[in-house]
Amino acid sequence: MQPISKARLEQFSDGVFAIAITLLALEIKVTELQNADLKNSLHELLPLIPNIATFILSFLGIAIFWVNHHQLTRNISTVSRRVVWSNMLFLLFVTLIPFATSAMAENYGNALAVVTYSFILLGSSSSFSILRFFVEKHQGNTKVKMLRSLVGPIIYTLAFISAFFSLGTTYALLIIPPLFYFLPRN
Amino acid sequence: MQPISKARLEQFSDGVFAIAITLLALEIKVTELQNADLKNSLHELLPLIPNIATFILSFLGIAIFWVNHHQLTRNISTVSRRVVWSNMLFLLFVTLIPFATSAMAENYGNALAVVTYSFILLGSSSSFSILRFFVEKHQGNTKVKMLRSLVGPIIYTLAFISAFFSLGTTYALLIIPPLFYFLPRN
Amino acid sequence: MQPISKARLEQFSDGVFAIAITLLALEIKVTELQNADLKNSLHELLPLIPNIATFILSFLGIAIFWVNHHQLTRNISTVSRRVVWSNMLFLLFVTLIPFATSAMAENYGNALAVVTYSFILLGSSSSFSILRFFVEKHQGNTKVKMLRSLVGPIIYTLAFISAFFSLGTTYALLIIPPLFYFLPRN
Amino acid sequence: MQPISKARLEQFSDGVFAIAITLLALEIKVTELQNADLKNSLHELLPLIPNIATFILSFLGIAIFWVNHHQLTRNISTVSRRVVWSNMLFLLFVTLIPFATSAMAENYGNALAVVTYSFILLGSSSSFSILRFFVEKHQGNTKVKMLRSLVGPIIYTLAFISAFFSLGTTYALLIIPPLFYFLPRN
Repeated sequence: MQPISKARLEQFSDGVFAIAITLLALEIKVTELQNADLKNSLHELLPLIPNIATFILSFLGIAIFWVNHHQLTRNISTVSRRVVWSNMLFLLFVTLIPFATSAMAENYGNALAVVTYSFILLGSSSSFSILRFFVEKHQGNTKVKMLRSLVGPIIYTLAFISAFFSLGTTYALLIIPPLFYFLPRN
Repeated sequence: MQPISKARLEQFSDGVFAIAITLLALEIKVTELQNADLKNSLHELLPLIPNIATFILSFLGIAIFWVNHHQLTRNISTVSRRVVWSNMLFLLFVTLIPFATSAMAENYGNALAVVTYSFILLGSSSSFSILRFFVEKHQGNTKVKMLRSLVGPIIYTLAFISAFFSLGTTYALLIIPPLFYFLPRN
Repeated sequence: MQPISKARLEQFSDGVFAIAITLLALEIKVTELQNADLKNSLHELLPLIPNIATFILSFLGIAIFWVNHHQLTRNISTVSRRVVWSNMLFLLFVTLIPFATSAMAENYGNALAVVTYSFILLGSSSSFSILRFFVEKHQGNTKVKMLRSLVGPIIYTLAFISAFFSLGTTYALLIIPPLFYFLPRN
Repeated sequence: MQPISKARLEQFSDGVFAIAITLLALEIKVTELQNADLKNSLHELLPLIPNIATFILSFLGIAIFWVNHHQLTRNISTVSRRVVWSNMLFLLFVTLIPFATSAMAENYGNALAVVTYSFILLGSSSSFSILRFFVEKHQGNTKVKMLRSLVGPIIYTLAFISAFFSLGTTYALLIIPPLFYFLPRN
């Protein structure tokens, strides 16, 4: 197989990122608003709060993946077969994020939905670490620093396990990776 | 963090713009047409009028954002971390426009839906002004002219507030920003 | 306003084209198949025939618009404000084609749906002619040959009018523009 | 007609690929989860297994088409009219894959759904072979090696026929093309 141009891999990946991130909002169901009187109907927005929180969490997740993806590919010009297919595995999990978001938002407090969400985020971050590994290897880096890349997979594994015992812990864990990303780095 | 290439930021943003603007039309519900006789069924199109007006309003809004986004990024070659994340905040509100459009079109005359719509347009235009500020700063402009950028946020704030008192005023205010855009400039 | 780069106009337009053409297939409803026995259930596909015919008609329509759009913009490097906004008007109608397709496919034989479909195709082809006019003018062509560009608008106008009298005539007229496109040209 | 630039053909095709592959996941219906107790509700995931298997099969199918499409077009700079339209025929079938996936996943064990799925994959792989033929001809290859390109169409034809007799055989056949792709080649 001939090497694949990075430009088209990015173009295809950006398409998937853009669609997945836009579909997140599509999953917020329009509540059937029935009271024309605003003061009486404000409480109708309350059931939307878990929806909106989950939406923002997933939006941040995909946005961070996009920035990291950009950082990863910006210095290469061609990609190997392994990079293409670990990128595909990563995108497979990214396309599942709107589904997982919708499942968690519509079934707030349901353990199965939270387990599903944690699993899909775990899959996304793990496959992104695999992608990073193959990109670095393709560039000839013999000693790949993967420590930072393991933060996501480890926290999402903990979130996945804790969902079987305490949903509150899982919700708290799911917020950590985006926060971690925005920490200042020395 | 290394600087991010403008090309890929535009590629990703254009994907989000294109999907959001195309999903607007998807929200127009196909009415269940039941009369084969055209003369008798023309009145079935009447309930679609608020839908179509809202659709055109949102289409114009996203189109104007796209043109302004293009104008903003055309003279830069790389972008800073702040530009990336204010762009993400802006895109977050853009992805919510189809949801807001659907809420307002399907609940015509409902104050809560109009408040939601005004809020999301306010968020879009404010975050675009923030984006503009960081792009200009990244380019080294010490004295950023932001006056024109405040027209949108101010009018949408007025629309948001007036929705609590008079929906007619809000509808009128929501039409101003697109009209203002097409005014000839000296 | 500074001139707009053609590349980004094409990128945005291609996004809209790609989404609109892919959403066409999404509108084909999955019939609830209930007979596991294939011979008895083949007749369940019959109601899908108008759906599939309309799908192919709209797919061809968008595909031809895309090819013509490409031909139109390939020789230019920047575009004027008028080109941008006539392109937006054209894209507005393109985003409505999946809606019109769905309306016509789900309400087979309904005059109102056929009128809607004809109107949206008329809008698409007319606004494309306007776009062509401004692109040619922007390129400095003083004598723009528009004859060929009028074929679509004229046939869709006839289709629109005939829908009030004879749906059979309208269906026949709607098939002409794609056939005309594939005619050999000397 | 002037030759068409490859870049824009790829841009448009990548858009369709990206949307089709992302819509696959949208078709996985969110089951109405009703038991907050995780142990009792795990069996609610069981009906999702055919959905997930079909999702992965279709995801792999589109991903392989994308890689092959990239390989095909990477060495050309312009494309002929025949290439454009065989590409459109190919994309027509690609846009139908989410519909076929949804039909097969939601009607597990239904012969008609399996026939539909096999037919659409047969159409995709056959039209891709036609596309390959015209690309190679456009490049001036007089002796086009098509043997490898026939594997997909032949297996999907067998899958289509066997669906009338034995669904088990069809499911087995549908798994072969992706496996075949990943076989090491000498």
